[in-house]
Amino acid sequence: MMFSFKLLKKDPNTRARLGLLKTFHNVVETPVFMPVGTLATVKTMSPEELKGIGAQIILSNTYHLYLRPGEELIAKAGGLHKFMNWDRAILTDSGGFQVFSLGPLRTISEEGVTFKSHIDGSTHFMSPEKAVKIQEALGSDIAMVFDECAPYPSEYSYAKEAMKRTYRWAKRCKEVHRREDQVLFGIVQGSIYPDLRVESAKYLTELDFPGYAVGGLSVGEPKPLMYEMLEVLEPHLPQDKPRYLMGVGSPDALIEGVIRGIDMFDCVLPTRIARNGTVFTRYGKLVVRNAAYKEDFRPIEEDCQCYTCRNYSRAYIRHLLHNDEVLGIRLTTIHNLHFLINLMKEIRKAIKEERLLVFAREFLQNYEQGKD
Amino acid sequence: MMFSFKLLKKDPNTRARLGLLKTFHNVVETPVFMPVGTLATVKTMSPEELKGIGAQIILSNTYHLYLRPGEELIAKAGGLHKFMNWDRAILTDSGGFQVFSLGPLRTISEEGVTFKSHIDGSTHFMSPEKAVKIQEALGSDIAMVFDECAPYPSEYSYAKEAMKRTYRWAKRCKEVHRREDQVLFGIVQGSIYPDLRVESAKYLTELDFPGYAVGGLSVGEPKPLMYEMLEVLEPHLPQDKPRYLMGVGSPDALIEGVIRGIDMFDCVLPTRIARNGTVFTRYGKLVVRNAAYKEDFRPIEEDCQCYTCRNYSRAYIRHLLHNDEVLGIRLTTIHNLHFLINLMKEIRKAIKEERLLVFAREFLQNYEQGKD
Repeated sequence: MMFSFKLLKKDPNTRARLGLLKTFHNVVETPVFMPVGTLATVKTMSPEELKGIGAQIILSNTYHLYLRPGEELIAKAGGLHKFMNWDRAILTDSGGFQVFSLGPLRTISEEGVTFKSHIDGSTHFMSPEKAVKIQEALGSDIAMVFDECAPYPSEYSYAKEAMKRTYRWAKRCKEVHRREDQVLFGIVQGSIYPDLRVESAKYLTELDFPGYAVGGLSVGEPKPLMYEMLEVLEPHLPQDKPRYLMGVGSPDALIEGVIRGIDMFDCVLPTRIARNGTVFTRYGKLVVRNAAYKEDFRPIEEDCQCYTCRNYSRAYIRHLLHNDEVLGIRLTTIHNLHFLINLMKEIRKAIKEERLLVFAREFLQNYEQGKD
Repeated sequence: MMFSFKLLKKDPNTRARLGLLKTFHNVVETPVFMPVGTLATVKTMSPEELKGIGAQIILSNTYHLYLRPGEELIAKAGGLHKFMNWDRAILTDSGGFQVFSLGPLRTISEEGVTFKSHIDGSTHFMSPEKAVKIQEALGSDIAMVFDECAPYPSEYSYAKEAMKRTYRWAKRCKEVHRREDQVLFGIVQGSIYPDLRVESAKYLTELDFPGYAVGGLSVGEPKPLMYEMLEVLEPHLPQDKPRYLMGVGSPDALIEGVIRGIDMFDCVLPTRIARNGTVFTRYGKLVVRNAAYKEDFRPIEEDCQCYTCRNYSRAYIRHLLHNDEVLGIRLTTIHNLHFLINLMKEIRKAIKEERLLVFAREFLQNYEQGKD
């Protein structure tokens, strides 16, 4: 199967798009949410469970897999898909975000980044060329260029420098990328500065990537600022290529992102909060771990069709969580991933039926209303 | 469905038996291994996964459920089956073993045992009457009498005293037991003293229980001593009632137990060692967590039909275990439970075909041979 993106429909009232992303493993309906499987596993889940809730594509992390177990071992295993028993699409990030998040543990040069492992403090070097090489060894369907992700807040001058370096590094990534059963996406940077975002998009689209990510957002800035950046950026991204908003996964931000023309999202949020005993509902988040649910024999959500809600009560889940029983975090993870994947399904349906704005308004109203 | 035990066949060469145990939820083929779900969950597993590997009946612990979440909450939830989404048989122990294992944290009187919770140090009282009441609230298919489990080693005099008290307590349990969709099994005690074991069996069978457990074995004594006790005891247990050897689950002891006339077993061993990264194989245990398996892309066992072995390599499982990924202990747990449940299936087949001794010799030879 060759890689392609087909734009099926554009919403007449928003910038939302309905699309089909053909990867080397399966066809992905967009807009799509990608569960995160940092270490070649979506925490607590089996691949069959992921498929059961409709996961079409997952994300895995280059930085983490490079450190453990190492990309060479995964290549020997026959690649990431075979290693982890997942036969649908995988997107790997480039490790840029993780490396830059290390703060004092890293030093940047034009050549690349020297950093210390968060595990054992050993020194490593990551460059655009190396990030591509590692992702080629992993064999993901979609690889990402190695970018410099400016933190929030960043001075204009640094944000500009990081954006320009991200462009130069994107070029170097593209030059060394060889694998034909893998595509490479560019990453737009520019922090919260509209002109830098537009400049970044212009630079990158000149390189003609098969897809474009928006990086450096959802890193601490207020959400309205993030939405503003998306609005500014959208006209400067090609219509016939998929757009991926990195690291965003709250229900409201998914809807707001889709409305602003985003096709792909990933985030650790649903799986991370699940492990802390927090679950999504139509009426906001619910801390099922709380004492309030001790004798609550209703499911997390009455009308939810997920495995968890069809079979278990809040009281049982709370009991499991309180006793550190693995099934507890399995059940909350299943519910949260199902919630987001089902939300994207409803969003796609709403786009198709040209009622996205109505759907969005209603969803956001309910979701905000119920907030603690 | 009424409770009954049907003896289908007796092995002509050993004391092994093939039977059908009709419970209030399903028909259980014996000899059977019961996975342990201490806190209303077999650690890491979903009920569907348990069924998938052929689990027919599970065990849950009265002591633990009494402390957390409390039997009243479970009764309100509609009973243990509904609470944990398990519609096959459940056996609950009486809490006796756990309470007596608390050592200095408990004091024994004829009335019952005063003990301190291992969780918060709070003081509790457990008696035969209370153990029955709790198990009736839980609603298990098979409840156990509250027994005094003598540790190993125990002086003859104390072992005798504990055995006699166990008998008196069994009588009291029987007197107060009311629930008609639950049966109560007696427990034979007597430590490693043949005459006490025989005496215990005589006392208990006078009370005419629908099933008899052998308690106080596998508590630290050498295995040959355990086997000797089973041999001494067997002629004194009624043929038409199921016999349950408590807390035994190593592959060799399962076979040796069946040969000595045992129909039911339970043990935390397969699930506990799984969480430490150790798995059963035909050729002994294998510590899949070890560095030796880092680049071993074979399954745990080449010919094993379990979900884990059909889909994952030792290298992947080791990677998961090393990174504390939940899927790792899920996969080792599935394999270990499948291993024992499948072993029992093979044992039943061998009894049916009158070749149990040949099967046992071959299995034990392979299993001992491969031991580290």
